[in-house]
Amino acid sequence: MTTAPRTLSLGAFVQGAGGHIAGWRHPEAYAAGQLDFAFHAELARVLERGRFDALFIADVAALWGHQMDALSRSGRAEHFEPLTLLSALSTVTEHIGLVATATTTYNEPFHVARKFASLDHLSHGRAGWNIVTSVVPLEAANFGRSEHLEHELRYRRADEFVEVVRALWDSFADGSLLRDKASGSYYDPAGLRPPHHQGEHFTVRGPLNISRPPQGHPVLFQAGSSQTGMAFGARHGEVLFTLQADLAGAQAFYAGVKKQVAAAGRNPDHVLIWPILFPLVGGTEEEARRKVAELDELVHDDVARRLVQDNIGDLDLTEYPLDGPVPDIPDSNRSKSRRDLLLGLARQENLTIRQLALRISGGATVAGTPEQIADHLELWFTERGADGFNVSFPYLPGPAVDFVDQVVPLLRKRGLVHETYEGSTFRENLGLPRPASQEVAA
Amino acid sequence: MTTAPRTLSLGAFVQGAGGHIAGWRHPEAYAAGQLDFAFHAELARVLERGRFDALFIADVAALWGHQMDALSRSGRAEHFEPLTLLSALSTVTEHIGLVATATTTYNEPFHVARKFASLDHLSHGRAGWNIVTSVVPLEAANFGRSEHLEHELRYRRADEFVEVVRALWDSFADGSLLRDKASGSYYDPAGLRPPHHQGEHFTVRGPLNISRPPQGHPVLFQAGSSQTGMAFGARHGEVLFTLQADLAGAQAFYAGVKKQVAAAGRNPDHVLIWPILFPLVGGTEEEARRKVAELDELVHDDVARRLVQDNIGDLDLTEYPLDGPVPDIPDSNRSKSRRDLLLGLARQENLTIRQLALRISGGATVAGTPEQIADHLELWFTERGADGFNVSFPYLPGPAVDFVDQVVPLLRKRGLVHETYEGSTFRENLGLPRPASQEVAA
Repeated sequence: MTTAPRTLSLGAFVQGAGGHIAGWRHPEAYAAGQLDFAFHAELARVLERGRFDALFIADVAALWGHQMDALSRSGRAEHFEPLTLLSALSTVTEHIGLVATATTTYNEPFHVARKFASLDHLSHGRAGWNIVTSVVPLEAANFGRSEHLEHELRYRRADEFVEVVRALWDSFADGSLLRDKASGSYYDPAGLRPPHHQGEHFTVRGPLNISRPPQGHPVLFQAGSSQTGMAFGARHGEVLFTLQADLAGAQAFYAGVKKQVAAAGRNPDHVLIWPILFPLVGGTEEEARRKVAELDELVHDDVARRLVQDNIGDLDLTEYPLDGPVPDIPDSNRSKSRRDLLLGLARQENLTIRQLALRISGGATVAGTPEQIADHLELWFTERGADGFNVSFPYLPGPAVDFVDQVVPLLRKRGLVHETYEGSTFRENLGLPRPASQEVAA
Repeated sequence: MTTAPRTLSLGAFVQGAGGHIAGWRHPEAYAAGQLDFAFHAELARVLERGRFDALFIADVAALWGHQMDALSRSGRAEHFEPLTLLSALSTVTEHIGLVATATTTYNEPFHVARKFASLDHLSHGRAGWNIVTSVVPLEAANFGRSEHLEHELRYRRADEFVEVVRALWDSFADGSLLRDKASGSYYDPAGLRPPHHQGEHFTVRGPLNISRPPQGHPVLFQAGSSQTGMAFGARHGEVLFTLQADLAGAQAFYAGVKKQVAAAGRNPDHVLIWPILFPLVGGTEEEARRKVAELDELVHDDVARRLVQDNIGDLDLTEYPLDGPVPDIPDSNRSKSRRDLLLGLARQENLTIRQLALRISGGATVAGTPEQIADHLELWFTERGADGFNVSFPYLPGPAVDFVDQVVPLLRKRGLVHETYEGSTFRENLGLPRPASQEVAA
């Protein structure tokens, strides 16, 4: 076990125009910010001022949902491809980790290994890969599949995919790039180890055509909360984020994952648990709650219906009254843990479709004064429900600025977060070890 | 036909550490530049000072060749993934077009459409896609294939691939992104047209999850010089680059392509022909030739052998004397036009393996004073062997700086090139029309 004191880590979870589905409609939101690089650059600078560890770009390789009319009312219809955006952001930031989602279901390991290695070199060791197996049915239709790959099968594919990607990152041993003009030796052939992988899903010879990433491997993020997903995270993940409704649930998840990590032969201190946090700061608790209510009023009926449908199953809710109960919804091939969590919540609290929608719209789950929000973070952190948080702001940039200027100083005062970036890579700033390189034969 | 006077366009062809296979060993070369973003940023700024139209990143999704020992002596063992590099460069440049190679053989149309659209938005209309069908056998092995796709088949796949990508770029009509907070309408559903493509190689529903690129479509580059490749270029290409040994060959290619373009129902003025140029500037002709000889001496025997082998066929040349004749080499599944050109040259001039290697090492084919080089460009341009040039510098950054500071001013003085960037997009600077958008139903 490490003896360094725990410190709380922070990531900003950026999903389209903001974490709240109707956030783009807020009077202070920058609605055209999605495709404006200057907007993203300014956000990244704000986050570095708050010493956020990571800027995390959520992603799907499709529109975010499938009911086009409802989508036309959400701010998630367009966004930069994450690797291109983060590469551009690497030039205007110095410290923050740059994390992008990429699916193992509709990608090739060689391309994924290469892009993240390239970002890691561009950013001098600040890349992170959020491994997903895809949940949106439209992705399948964009890649020649009539149906999304079955849940267990896509995790098997993901296991092999990650194995190949790691082997590709290790194609060149550390230090094997000599670039010696006199002898004409650009690299030491003894340091080259192409994976020559042959498996169930992939055959990849390698080597990768870029030297080993500065971090060894970019930091691996993952978010599966199903049994299969948690086991996958325990094997591969270094930062696991999760949606948890309350501290008890977060603690159970935290303890369960750390146990699985240890059982998998890994050090539990080297796997960080980051619940998603939806904060909204107000001068008073009442002001914060009023802000939430204002956001909720901006959610169009069609969007509310779609949100429930997209998150829970395949049932068309068009004919169901929005202010009536959530009907029985048949199982689907999407994220199981999220479905169970949300349906459970709806049954337990007897929610209407609209009420459930507002719970999953990305509206603040922690709305209050800076002190109240800092208290929440401190409680979950010290009570082992969290090592850090993946923070989603309802719209941008205002609520992110408020969090950085009002909540972060309190976390600093309480000694929960680092004051400055002390490491030279993302991995170092998170306190995660650098994966060892193969040895070069002498 | 357009009545505007023709102007000569310039692209910089960047391939690893430089166009010459041993360029990285030159005393003035920056050998570690490949993975140093600052180096690429400085090069891009130099090129903008010279009002280059394009910075073009050549690429393969593998190491550049397959004889690992020889590769260890070349500067092409590592390079940034082009889309990540160009996205980063978009933040430190204002005008230059950013062109990357991406293969249609080992990619999915959705990913390619998305990345180039994203780069086009990031750069405010400066993206270009060089469409290739792949020629390096190692690429197949990195994507689960035991053999490279057969020549005709990979062009059929490429045709369909380009069709899908263009349809994806057109998913949202121009002007359909409303982002109207009051009505809550982010886009106009009438402006959305998902491709719903079902073809021989691809099934892609769409829409793309990003609005139409600023240029409508990024500029399409292509370089096939075989019969099949030329026909493909005539159908899809907007800038065609080509390797031509002399003016007569270039003129024949130029006339042939323009005729095919017209036959395909397109305006020949909207397809630019860019022969590859390998210039090396000296204060005198003798000095320039001495520079070439110095570079040639840096080519290691193994590298010379590999160059011939990789460019011509599958015969292992290890047992053949480097200073003996080029043997008969069996046909392979690689670039046919390049093979025919090089073998023809070897036979015609009775070249040894080493001599042929030095012809294809990327050493200067036009070495001389700035005036001599400008004369060459002017002749090929006015005699209709070229509309512009894809300029490859043997190493970097020196020879690029020399070209910008010594050759470009002469081209300006002669009225051959524009003095400044006059358009607001890459496409406009090249004098190419913007593809029309679908009409939005009223």
